[in-house]
Amino acid sequence: MLSFTIQNVLIATNDDYVTVDVQVVDGKIAAIAANLEVIGTAIDGKHKLLLPGFFNAHTHSSEMWQRGIMSVLPLELWLAELYDFAPLDIEQVYLSALGTAVETLLSGGTSVVDHLVLIPGQELETIAIAIRAYKEVGIRAFIAPLIQDQSLTAGIPSGESTQNHEPYFRSTAATLEIIEEAVKKFHRPDEGVSILVAPTGIQLCTDDLFVGCIELSDRYNLCRHSHLLETRAQEKLAQEKYGCTAVEHLQRIGYLSDKTSLAHCVWLNDADIAILSETQSTVVHNPLSNLRLGSGIAPILKYRQAGVNVTFGCDGASSNDSQDLLEAIKIGSILHNVTDLDYQYWITPRKSVEMASLGGAKGLNVADQLGSLTVGKQADFVLYDLTNLSLLPRTDPIGLLVLGRPSNVVNSAWVNGKQIINNGKFTTINVDELRQELFTRSQWETKRKSETVAQIETHYRTVMGL
Amino acid sequence: MLSFTIQNVLIATNDDYVTVDVQVVDGKIAAIAANLEVIGTAIDGKHKLLLPGFFNAHTHSSEMWQRGIMSVLPLELWLAELYDFAPLDIEQVYLSALGTAVETLLSGGTSVVDHLVLIPGQELETIAIAIRAYKEVGIRAFIAPLIQDQSLTAGIPSGESTQNHEPYFRSTAATLEIIEEAVKKFHRPDEGVSILVAPTGIQLCTDDLFVGCIELSDRYNLCRHSHLLETRAQEKLAQEKYGCTAVEHLQRIGYLSDKTSLAHCVWLNDADIAILSETQSTVVHNPLSNLRLGSGIAPILKYRQAGVNVTFGCDGASSNDSQDLLEAIKIGSILHNVTDLDYQYWITPRKSVEMASLGGAKGLNVADQLGSLTVGKQADFVLYDLTNLSLLPRTDPIGLLVLGRPSNVVNSAWVNGKQIINNGKFTTINVDELRQELFTRSQWETKRKSETVAQIETHYRTVMGL
Repeated sequence: MLSFTIQNVLIATNDDYVTVDVQVVDGKIAAIAANLEVIGTAIDGKHKLLLPGFFNAHTHSSEMWQRGIMSVLPLELWLAELYDFAPLDIEQVYLSALGTAVETLLSGGTSVVDHLVLIPGQELETIAIAIRAYKEVGIRAFIAPLIQDQSLTAGIPSGESTQNHEPYFRSTAATLEIIEEAVKKFHRPDEGVSILVAPTGIQLCTDDLFVGCIELSDRYNLCRHSHLLETRAQEKLAQEKYGCTAVEHLQRIGYLSDKTSLAHCVWLNDADIAILSETQSTVVHNPLSNLRLGSGIAPILKYRQAGVNVTFGCDGASSNDSQDLLEAIKIGSILHNVTDLDYQYWITPRKSVEMASLGGAKGLNVADQLGSLTVGKQADFVLYDLTNLSLLPRTDPIGLLVLGRPSNVVNSAWVNGKQIINNGKFTTINVDELRQELFTRSQWETKRKSETVAQIETHYRTVMGL
Repeated sequence: MLSFTIQNVLIATNDDYVTVDVQVVDGKIAAIAANLEVIGTAIDGKHKLLLPGFFNAHTHSSEMWQRGIMSVLPLELWLAELYDFAPLDIEQVYLSALGTAVETLLSGGTSVVDHLVLIPGQELETIAIAIRAYKEVGIRAFIAPLIQDQSLTAGIPSGESTQNHEPYFRSTAATLEIIEEAVKKFHRPDEGVSILVAPTGIQLCTDDLFVGCIELSDRYNLCRHSHLLETRAQEKLAQEKYGCTAVEHLQRIGYLSDKTSLAHCVWLNDADIAILSETQSTVVHNPLSNLRLGSGIAPILKYRQAGVNVTFGCDGASSNDSQDLLEAIKIGSILHNVTDLDYQYWITPRKSVEMASLGGAKGLNVADQLGSLTVGKQADFVLYDLTNLSLLPRTDPIGLLVLGRPSNVVNSAWVNGKQIINNGKFTTINVDELRQELFTRSQWETKRKSETVAQIETHYRTVMGL
């Protein structure tokens, strides 16, 4: 039943709101106007706001297992701790993908980009189970299997010292084969599942891996994803590795394009920003993890002024430590007011909504089908209950949603015209069962010690001048 | 019924957790240990975490009426818009105080410092109605009636220009009389209501007003509150007004003390920080409003290293735009990781909890009675449901609470041993009725234009070099 009509619902116009009916036929928006004929089920939109679904444009779902417990550390050390305790269990991947989808949907997201950590030796199984979870929930999934071909210590600059790194356990060619197989098996954009090529970033990948990903991207028309210059250490490392900035290098090897989305982008200079603009690459801003890991404040206002497309991600739940997209949108918007005295450049709530919806669609090369309430586009949208206490008293609905701290405000959500949340409850999965599974399979704990952190911390502090 | 026993509840020890029973007798914590005898009602603490109540140590309750709608502007212009549309109605003050109390309690706060905007000509009535609301809800209230004796434009530096400001509508003496009367009528710390002296800040107050407040504070043993150096403009203004920093001036006139809490403290230099430490003043950090208004990032890690007591506030809901204390604690903790490369100084979740509870109590000179789970202290505490999806999977409970994005996690809350929330529901007021009142008395709106902003914006931009 992918046809329905939402009646008397508030939607945003250019700089105001209007009450309309919205007709959906066969999963697509068929009409938006006052007093439309009811096609399919009639849904009461009174005192509700309809917005296009947001994109959780960068996350790592299995990090959910370690949220709340990760030490207060910068990325390079934090990663070492993360990997020391990473879940290596397909069932856990399934449950954390469900959890990621649920929290994303409950905060207005209808699409998720999962930069998915693969269990060694079970790479395709990991991808398959995450996809199964996303399909069961019904969220639109962009699976970006996280790949690298250098070992973890290679991600820390050497500085004055000479460092030897163990070779990565799997060859570059074998890794690329896995991705190609995943594409053949799982890349079904029309069914709501896309595969992206997604080397983790310049810090742990050779040029061969990047070039192999570019070839796959071209051959199968895949979007490209990567971390980029999240930390100061990575900025240093790029100079050591390439003798130029990471952005210059990625442009040179041809990774940047209008199908490329880049998570973080904290340490770019003005020339780098011009390159992102010129290549029409998309920046995925993950404000919470950038703060949590002390990575820095990404120059988002500069990106916007340079015409670079920007959207938001939650990043993995171990560095956030949530998957609430409204929180990421709020902090990712107001954070930048302290970086430019001139308030004329600050991000308004309406701009934030556009970045989170259309910005996400652009970054995934689907702006012709998603990202706005436009006749002919897919019905991926969310209905917010404006009578919720956290959205009262009534003022500007989008202002309340973006700048407030909304809780339990998603009344309904649809992806591709299929209703996933109805009156605040999931129609597709049993969330209470998920909750019980997450409870049963975990233990409260406080004391754990990462051996790898202990091994690499001295070198890290020396190189970073601490 | 102020005696009860919480059984099998998780509490934090120095660096771990332990399961205990907590006995409360006559509103005070009588014992904390395993297997205690049940006194009064038995309360099941299983799978729950008990923490001391947090302090919402700086807010302006009536701003709730304008949350979501305020333009994206820096403080000085934002204030002009705020006052152009401020509610001037006692009933509205009542409802927004109820709303402030409810949101504070639902996010772990059991005390609120309301820097209360007074309706001109109805000053005592404003105070009385806010107190009535707080008493009805049952939250511990610190009422800091917001006073000034200079008009709004005096708060913007003159720069090269000569500015004339209208005199304030009420004399300094008359203002001080109102405060003294409020103290006599309403200051009842033993009943959970305290009055503070609370000049808005150096930007709108003469020395006479500060000195009058010091005298009242000394005579009636009142705590002192004020905004301090929230913006760069105020830093400039202090130099114009005093020829020294605002902190140096406030120290000289004797306003700083161990009973003094100062909201914001964004633009202090190292010498100023030393003065705060020496005078044992408390900094109230309001991270959300500092970002929203582009005020800057308060040097919180420096305060902590200098031994300055720091606690958290939501600030008024028009600059936040919520009253969720857990959000303020999270952002107020992780924000500072980007200000110091050395992660050894970053604020851990356990430190955040201590700042929000004991830090708040210290700033209000009640650390002997509140702010920790200590035998002999008042039973102001909150029971969190650790089976909530937003706190799963189980890892470190305090890490999940502080770094996650908890929703609906407060199972129970007590103030002075009186239960205010039970199983997520208020026992004292009807929140659904409040919700309906807030709905009925407001309208969705998008377009409003502040005349005062239009009048002062050119001067503001000139002085700030924009």
